Amino acid sequence: MTWLDLPEDTDFGLDNLPYGVFSRGGEPARRVGVAVGEHVLDLSAAAEEAAAPFAQLLTSGVLNPLLAAGPATWHDVREQIREWLTAGRYADQVRPHLVPRTEITNHLPFEVADYVDFYSSEQHAINAGRIFRGADDELMPNWKHLPIGYHGRAGTVVVSGTPVVRPSGQRKPRAATDPSFGPSQLLDIEAEVGFVVGTPSTLGTPVPVEDFEKHVFGVCLVNDWSARDIQGWESQPLGPFLGKSFATSVAPWIVPLAALEHARVPQPAQDPRPLEYLRVTEPWGLDLALEIRLNGHLVSSPPFATQYWTAPQQLAHLTVNGASLRTGDLYASGTVTGPAKQQRGSLLELSWGGREPFTLGDGETRTFLEDGDEVSISATAPGPGGTRIGFGEVTGRVVPR
Amino acid sequence: MTWLDLPEDTDFGLDNLPYGVFSRGGEPARRVGVAVGEHVLDLSAAAEEAAAPFAQLLTSGVLNPLLAAGPATWHDVREQIREWLTAGRYADQVRPHLVPRTEITNHLPFEVADYVDFYSSEQHAINAGRIFRGADDELMPNWKHLPIGYHGRAGTVVVSGTPVVRPSGQRKPRAATDPSFGPSQLLDIEAEVGFVVGTPSTLGTPVPVEDFEKHVFGVCLVNDWSARDIQGWESQPLGPFLGKSFATSVAPWIVPLAALEHARVPQPAQDPRPLEYLRVTEPWGLDLALEIRLNGHLVSSPPFATQYWTAPQQLAHLTVNGASLRTGDLYASGTVTGPAKQQRGSLLELSWGGREPFTLGDGETRTFLEDGDEVSISATAPGPGGTRIGFGEVTGRVVPR
Repeated sequence: MTWLDLPEDTDFGLDNLPYGVFSRGGEPARRVGVAVGEHVLDLSAAAEEAAAPFAQLLTSGVLNPLLAAGPATWHDVREQIREWLTAGRYADQVRPHLVPRTEITNHLPFEVADYVDFYSSEQHAINAGRIFRGADDELMPNWKHLPIGYHGRAGTVVVSGTPVVRPSGQRKPRAATDPSFGPSQLLDIEAEVGFVVGTPSTLGTPVPVEDFEKHVFGVCLVNDWSARDIQGWESQPLGPFLGKSFATSVAPWIVPLAALEHARVPQPAQDPRPLEYLRVTEPWGLDLALEIRLNGHLVSSPPFATQYWTAPQQLAHLTVNGASLRTGDLYASGTVTGPAKQQRGSLLELSWGGREPFTLGDGETRTFLEDGDEVSISATAPGPGGTRIGFGEVTGRVVPR
Repeated sequence: MTWLDLPEDTDFGLDNLPYGVFSRGGEPARRVGVAVGEHVLDLSAAAEEAAAPFAQLLTSGVLNPLLAAGPATWHDVREQIREWLTAGRYADQVRPHLVPRTEITNHLPFEVADYVDFYSSEQHAINAGRIFRGADDELMPNWKHLPIGYHGRAGTVVVSGTPVVRPSGQRKPRAATDPSFGPSQLLDIEAEVGFVVGTPSTLGTPVPVEDFEKHVFGVCLVNDWSARDIQGWESQPLGPFLGKSFATSVAPWIVPLAALEHARVPQPAQDPRPLEYLRVTEPWGLDLALEIRLNGHLVSSPPFATQYWTAPQQLAHLTVNGASLRTGDLYASGTVTGPAKQQRGSLLELSWGGREPFTLGDGETRTFLEDGDEVSISATAPGPGGTRIGFGEVTGRVVPR
């Protein structure tokens, strides 16, 4: 099947081949790579040596030119990589471009154009409603009619491993008369799944649900760091701002949509039936199993397949007003939370608003993040023939300012 | 004073010199230019011919490289332009690079990185509170403690003159049980003033109020088109999204901060006294007189000097959580509304939520925008010696989809 010595049970088999950007050792050059087994294939170098027709898309140190090239090219590049990694005649040519992943530094894989964050887990929205507004007011009246979302700060999307400086800001506990200023005391995470737009669209022309695969290149893990105290005080009436904009971390690997065919599952039933532009005929639920670790301890396992609104619906909604897409747009699912307690995608929910500290494996407890805490979110999905499609992980350590 | 034949009473005298990007006739090349009198100086060409040290900043068809160069360069370029336009010995060399503005096409002057929209007019916030929430609830409790803001869609910031396609979307009138889909029936404008960031900042490090002039390059007019019905239905709990993201228009000319020294006025008194990071010692109120025209009829004259929160305060707030700035970040003031009825910066306010149609000069009335309507926002500020600093205008015509 391959001349490569692939570890059994790898997250990065030949059916995955996620894309990233890396540099080797102390070299400044940023290269486009594909994770395979415990290596990364230096795609920039391999394509140049092979004089591949797509080689010039891989020289800018970001994935954007490849993203912009569109689905036919994405298909061709993927097929070529698989051929290089399987046909024995390429082994001698390609082997020198395989770099152990322990020897690389990952960089932000693409230049983010606009960043949108949705709020599409029903259980998360219910939990947030219960925690903030009381159990009588579980879901906002609009929630089941449209995928609620907002724009975040594209300029502070950072790659996994970037330290997260605890943000300072204004917060006003309910009991206080006036706000005070200082480091956030309710620093949180949100485990999310992000969708990376490749093909742009035209201003004034909506993108229908069925064009999802023409525009979206791939999927990556996202940690939408959130300062709940800052967010709580600032959010009326225009939504979250500084409570979110200090950092959003993404995993180094973008899993191509093509790798997720076996992960597609029906989404949850939608009642009421959505308006026409949000109706889908193809299943685009995705069976991703997320895991959240805090200082190495597994604290939650959110199931992405429970999301109420799917990525094609989010894309159609995002553009239904005529807003255009640009190459590098990133939109995230919102916190992924399942129905069970150990499936909650934020510490807000795991600690129920800070009222119920939860335990790490070593007996320590947490409500929100402490300085020095490291959070790591990983995910896998089913691949063909019992294989596993890994998403790598998005990790960040909280540091004091 | 100048070898140029400048019209008396021009908005674009030697103390203004706003920057833009244009092309000539049918030529594809985008050039950096400076508006002067009824001409634009082709700065890209003039700098290249003069072998100016900054010439290479002007070749990319956007202002971003010049913006990124920082305040010392901004100063040098401005001084050089003034010398070219005043010293007689340059007349023969520079004159061929003056192009009548009637012969050019303006383009988006800079690549927008992140776009943030504030909400910093007290009278606008009061009016919005009265219209939406009733007179008893005039200002949110947080409003006088921080400049409320949110992120908008950078990818749909367009240059003046770009047609605005009436957005479709979900809206639910209060009386209706379910939302329906269709073209917005409450299409509105917001007359705003935008600030363009040149010098980037470091993630994790706030920018203090006193560093405003190190980071902000200049000022431009903004029309934050708003679909009130879409916005009203979608905004809880995460703020405006599709009600705003279909288009935000900016004027073609960025007035350098250096041109606004004579426009600086004390801002309104702030009570309660803001937290320390928002305290300013220098006056950064700006005496800009805005005018809004609908199909050529003057419908409002909002005074920018009435803004409660100033641009240095907004910048300090935007970064106080450690969020970094990028070259090309744009942040807008929010709707500029003065205390008088004819100083309201949105049709929402001019028609008091659609309940009080207002008259155009020709006897027609409006509540919100009709297809074919053209809105134009202009502004001037005092310059030295009784001169006037013009901001040009930001114009857009509503077209049906």
